[in-house]
Amino acid sequence: MILILTPNIDPESEVYEHLMAHLSRLQNIRLSVHRVQGTEQALTEIHLIGNTAAVSLEEMRSLPGVERAVRVSEEYRVIGRHRGDGRPAHFDYQGVRFGQDTLNVFAGLCAVDTRENVETMMRALHTQGQVCTRMGAYKPRTSTYSFQGHGRACLPYVFELAGKYGIKIIAMEVTHESHIDEIREALRQTGNPTGVMLQIGTRNTQNFEMLKKVGRQQEFPVLLKRGFGITLDESLHAAEYLASEGNHKIIFGLRGIKTNLGDPHRNFVDFAHVSVVKRLTLMPVCVDPSHAVGSRTSGPEGILDLMHTTAQGVISGANMILVDFHPKPDEALVDGPQALLLKELPYFLEDVRVAREAYLKRKALAERYQSTAKAEDDLCLQAAELA
Amino acid sequence: MILILTPNIDPESEVYEHLMAHLSRLQNIRLSVHRVQGTEQALTEIHLIGNTAAVSLEEMRSLPGVERAVRVSEEYRVIGRHRGDGRPAHFDYQGVRFGQDTLNVFAGLCAVDTRENVETMMRALHTQGQVCTRMGAYKPRTSTYSFQGHGRACLPYVFELAGKYGIKIIAMEVTHESHIDEIREALRQTGNPTGVMLQIGTRNTQNFEMLKKVGRQQEFPVLLKRGFGITLDESLHAAEYLASEGNHKIIFGLRGIKTNLGDPHRNFVDFAHVSVVKRLTLMPVCVDPSHAVGSRTSGPEGILDLMHTTAQGVISGANMILVDFHPKPDEALVDGPQALLLKELPYFLEDVRVAREAYLKRKALAERYQSTAKAEDDLCLQAAELA
Amino acid sequence: MILILTPNIDPESEVYEHLMAHLSRLQNIRLSVHRVQGTEQALTEIHLIGNTAAVSLEEMRSLPGVERAVRVSEEYRVIGRHRGDGRPAHFDYQGVRFGQDTLNVFAGLCAVDTRENVETMMRALHTQGQVCTRMGAYKPRTSTYSFQGHGRACLPYVFELAGKYGIKIIAMEVTHESHIDEIREALRQTGNPTGVMLQIGTRNTQNFEMLKKVGRQQEFPVLLKRGFGITLDESLHAAEYLASEGNHKIIFGLRGIKTNLGDPHRNFVDFAHVSVVKRLTLMPVCVDPSHAVGSRTSGPEGILDLMHTTAQGVISGANMILVDFHPKPDEALVDGPQALLLKELPYFLEDVRVAREAYLKRKALAERYQSTAKAEDDLCLQAAELA
Amino acid sequence: MILILTPNIDPESEVYEHLMAHLSRLQNIRLSVHRVQGTEQALTEIHLIGNTAAVSLEEMRSLPGVERAVRVSEEYRVIGRHRGDGRPAHFDYQGVRFGQDTLNVFAGLCAVDTRENVETMMRALHTQGQVCTRMGAYKPRTSTYSFQGHGRACLPYVFELAGKYGIKIIAMEVTHESHIDEIREALRQTGNPTGVMLQIGTRNTQNFEMLKKVGRQQEFPVLLKRGFGITLDESLHAAEYLASEGNHKIIFGLRGIKTNLGDPHRNFVDFAHVSVVKRLTLMPVCVDPSHAVGSRTSGPEGILDLMHTTAQGVISGANMILVDFHPKPDEALVDGPQALLLKELPYFLEDVRVAREAYLKRKALAERYQSTAKAEDDLCLQAAELA
Repeated sequence: MILILTPNIDPESEVYEHLMAHLSRLQNIRLSVHRVQGTEQALTEIHLIGNTAAVSLEEMRSLPGVERAVRVSEEYRVIGRHRGDGRPAHFDYQGVRFGQDTLNVFAGLCAVDTRENVETMMRALHTQGQVCTRMGAYKPRTSTYSFQGHGRACLPYVFELAGKYGIKIIAMEVTHESHIDEIREALRQTGNPTGVMLQIGTRNTQNFEMLKKVGRQQEFPVLLKRGFGITLDESLHAAEYLASEGNHKIIFGLRGIKTNLGDPHRNFVDFAHVSVVKRLTLMPVCVDPSHAVGSRTSGPEGILDLMHTTAQGVISGANMILVDFHPKPDEALVDGPQALLLKELPYFLEDVRVAREAYLKRKALAERYQSTAKAEDDLCLQAAELA
Repeated sequence: MILILTPNIDPESEVYEHLMAHLSRLQNIRLSVHRVQGTEQALTEIHLIGNTAAVSLEEMRSLPGVERAVRVSEEYRVIGRHRGDGRPAHFDYQGVRFGQDTLNVFAGLCAVDTRENVETMMRALHTQGQVCTRMGAYKPRTSTYSFQGHGRACLPYVFELAGKYGIKIIAMEVTHESHIDEIREALRQTGNPTGVMLQIGTRNTQNFEMLKKVGRQQEFPVLLKRGFGITLDESLHAAEYLASEGNHKIIFGLRGIKTNLGDPHRNFVDFAHVSVVKRLTLMPVCVDPSHAVGSRTSGPEGILDLMHTTAQGVISGANMILVDFHPKPDEALVDGPQALLLKELPYFLEDVRVAREAYLKRKALAERYQSTAKAEDDLCLQAAELA
Repeated sequence: MILILTPNIDPESEVYEHLMAHLSRLQNIRLSVHRVQGTEQALTEIHLIGNTAAVSLEEMRSLPGVERAVRVSEEYRVIGRHRGDGRPAHFDYQGVRFGQDTLNVFAGLCAVDTRENVETMMRALHTQGQVCTRMGAYKPRTSTYSFQGHGRACLPYVFELAGKYGIKIIAMEVTHESHIDEIREALRQTGNPTGVMLQIGTRNTQNFEMLKKVGRQQEFPVLLKRGFGITLDESLHAAEYLASEGNHKIIFGLRGIKTNLGDPHRNFVDFAHVSVVKRLTLMPVCVDPSHAVGSRTSGPEGILDLMHTTAQGVISGANMILVDFHPKPDEALVDGPQALLLKELPYFLEDVRVAREAYLKRKALAERYQSTAKAEDDLCLQAAELA
Repeated sequence: MILILTPNIDPESEVYEHLMAHLSRLQNIRLSVHRVQGTEQALTEIHLIGNTAAVSLEEMRSLPGVERAVRVSEEYRVIGRHRGDGRPAHFDYQGVRFGQDTLNVFAGLCAVDTRENVETMMRALHTQGQVCTRMGAYKPRTSTYSFQGHGRACLPYVFELAGKYGIKIIAMEVTHESHIDEIREALRQTGNPTGVMLQIGTRNTQNFEMLKKVGRQQEFPVLLKRGFGITLDESLHAAEYLASEGNHKIIFGLRGIKTNLGDPHRNFVDFAHVSVVKRLTLMPVCVDPSHAVGSRTSGPEGILDLMHTTAQGVISGANMILVDFHPKPDEALVDGPQALLLKELPYFLEDVRVAREAYLKRKALAERYQSTAKAEDDLCLQAAELA
């Protein structure tokens, strides 16, 4: 059970103390307090864990200081979308809003290679009015003998260039808890010119120890990729590891499933799960067409599969796009063949806009039909009552 | 190698006879002649099979009566899209065009149960201006003890009602060659009030003997569904079984892949393959959201996953939608839980239109960027030549 | 519910007529009669289908002419192993017994190519005392342009040679119902020198129309292969299609699952399901190492993976082995690379014997421990009673 | 390229110094030195990394101090079995030998729960003459709300009890690098009464950062489990991460693949890959029937699937068995339903012995046939020479 307290409640206040005293007397119930400092208000949640079946929802709702009480399913306790759930499905970071109702594009380099390429990329993004990017410093590679990324060494210039070109957030994969400190330190040294979204890749989706570490910090939001070969349910449980440790700024990433049934695509594109994740949880959903498709093949209209699948994600409500670009794909050290060309960036963004508009139209259409259906139902009810 | 002859060439003409005589003298080459009678012209193709490496493309092109000659890959010889391929990617049936550039909706009953439900469905389609539907008479079921469809018994009233409501084409699964005769006979008896598209289901994708039989008739077009658990490549090879027997009116159907990684959907939605099939072959592509998704779950906007996935197929260029509706889903004998409600039909069609418009916009966008890119390339070339 | 009647009951007898009259008065119950003529006795089963919950098991058991009554689960009604099931898990054909307690090897040619190779193969089998073989006349091939088998043309000499070398049963795939007639006719013409086990391949596991046709004849036993990409449960339901039509002489074949996770093997070897199929059903279980493994790779001891996996099947109780051999694998028209060499036949059989002995030892061991465990339990009970 | 130096070569010796000086002058070649201190001798390998194509194998073999030189494929450089590879396929730890030719059973608790259960288990093992066990202290669980193991708290009593009952090695999963230190420290505090084999679970197979840390220590051998949903090739590349850091004491574990096609088993049993891993690499191979099968179902002979699959692994040459037992499965905190009962231990071990004997007989059989085949070939050659 989750108790959402009145906004900005003061932990030193009498109301709060009484409430906690009362709750602590509940039998077989453990308490866990989560505070999220938003831009405008501080939100406090108290999670009741244990034998909550014996706890009355009505009683909880009547307690001073409690604004709402929600009985949650055992599954996805924190990230889950529960009946009567009024908790927000969005968060803010660096002045950018990430929600189940927004769309943000993170175009950038799969792997940082040279300072020149980073700058070229960021300049292009800036020209297009983009404030987010992706830049891989730590690269997990199947073979220990492959290029593993420049790591901490490249962070200072990546962050400086971000600042120079107005990039507010860089999505960046971490493969070890120590990378968080390295990123924090490099940001500090360069004067915090940008923000970072920590990305957890598909090979580490069930690296629970790292998830706990990443979940314990609340400075950086997290993009958690779906795991290889595990069910969607298991990947969502992994997100709960992050959330239960306190970090609720989580975006869930779809990137395709490994199986030869998806051939000739590199992975089996799974963007039909966009609406599923949004129904089951409060997390915004990201799609990664580059890793899902893995090549620059195109349909007979000359539209890349990469762009077709992006449009598929967006028209069904995806909230974030993670996509590889490269100034010189032939020279890219990682995944060059799947990168879009820099000159394709304006076209890509325009294509995305078409799909997003279609999504918004579809949403408006759904609302119109829902209200009509409701009106009809009401009419039927009235008629029935009159009869 | 495929020789496309001059349109309307007369098999009795001297040119044709000379050509055939010449070709029959080629060493180690077997000839196979395919004639397609379109609405406006008759197209004749001669397939050269065997050691075509020794045959000169130029020589073939220079032969009187030959309009075009195309060297085809071993794979997908007939259905494939080959370099320099000018063969059409569309066909006409019952006055309806099916092509890689069109979109047709086949909404209807997964399984015919009662005459009343068939009529209710068709009346609704007629009201919405629809001329195609799906109606299952022969149902392949996992268990031998489940309802197996009404079979031939229901055909007469299904066809009569189709005629009554202006339905021109009914997609109908066949699970045995004898069903083709039953359908042809019932159409004849009822005065051919409608047309039928033979549907081959996922359990019979590699039932090669039936494919050959279905391919040998050219009266009915064929919708071939992708096979369970086989690669896309293998399913496309199955389509070649139809085509090599002479029937080129084939639509390829995507309906999801069986694996628990697609949960909670019934199947793993595979509509990212729409553009892949269109690139590799000349077949129009159908999506079947009902069997792919298999339930009426919806995202937080209240839009059904069924409609989200339909939109995904359409925005990437799908050419046909096969979708289950039912007047009373609770009473449906097969797959009721995945059926759309009859009152949702106008909404569904409107939602499809939004996605189709987005696709057309994306296509126009692609053309604009391609012509710009070409113009730039030309400019560069000119500059280079001047220099 | 299944009623097993007293053996050799005469359908003309008064007992039988009274019984049928009684049963036909049961409300909402449909009857289906199955008669199996064994070498020594005729077994008659009456299947009660419909609302059997309302039928008393005790009453049924007390009816004259009824030897046993078994309440069956909805699933696998006929093939299933039900509580209190005393029905046999074996059958005889051509003097050879096929049961959950026997082991028969079917070594032979994947595809018949030349008369010479057929004779060489059969002579080798004869020398090794083998009376069963595999010989493919009808080959379903992924590509319509691949060799599709010699079909009916080769049947006469295949059957004659079988007779010459004392081969009693040939496992032979059929891909269309007409093949049964062709086989029956060729056997008749050659004087029935041998028997045939009809094999249904993985592409046709859910070709229900063919299953029904094959199930309606009781002359030939059937080897049903597990389907590609469908669950084991679904494949077992397919076997029920055969059985519900009357043919209970069914062997279930494991041949690996199509997925890249089984690489470098051609398919993912699924022989761990041997004991599962034997637990759930009464069918003997066949393993097909050739198609599962698909190559002649071997472990560091120099033992082929083919033989390792065969041993795995056998040590866990497999009842039949279907395995490809070829006198000249390089010249084989189908699947040459996975064939064993003729000179390896004695070695293969000896290796199988080692695994079979180990299985029998394990079975004896299990019986010893079970009786010990029972004795201990009895002792405990006695002690408890004394106390 | 790998240079294997003369055993016990002294790094301070002149020969060694000359060798290193010579090697360091090779163009575009990086050197990596690996020393393994065995019970009887120290083995030194020098890995040449980079443009080895330009290095002469003959020249390397002729260098003083070099006993053997092996050109390795890019893949599986260290763990791979290369042409002309004379490197050992075994190692020793705590006086126990682990090789591609041995078999060790690790029966024990999936998760440590109480001291009493640990002691009961170890006493039973001791009675049966077993010196290895499995004991899970750190448990990675799908849900963050499930029991996560007692962690470091239980280590002291687990190690003490191991010492008391003569257990020499405990296989123990680690999910974070810090666990290695905790284990080392607990062993030190309790006087090193036993040894530990670090186990890396399927969720961390591609947790490369942890693999590097585990690979950098050479005190504890490592059992690396195959990863979920990735190919065998990718899992073997993960093993290379361990090996390239210096730890060559690696055992590769098969534990089934996650897919519904393996139902009703928990995972799809993959023990057909035992011989594949042994062919491709020098690693001994472990099978984990408990996690693969996941239940106590049994075949009609009353033999558990767990034991059938164990026998399948062993008869094809498995070198280690990891298997769950529990004194009171009903009370087990993790995976109780798949545990064997303590009273089944003697039976299990006897069943394993039957399968192992069969494997050894098969191996002898293979050797006999190989030498016969060789003799025949020699005879043919002689005959040909005489002719």
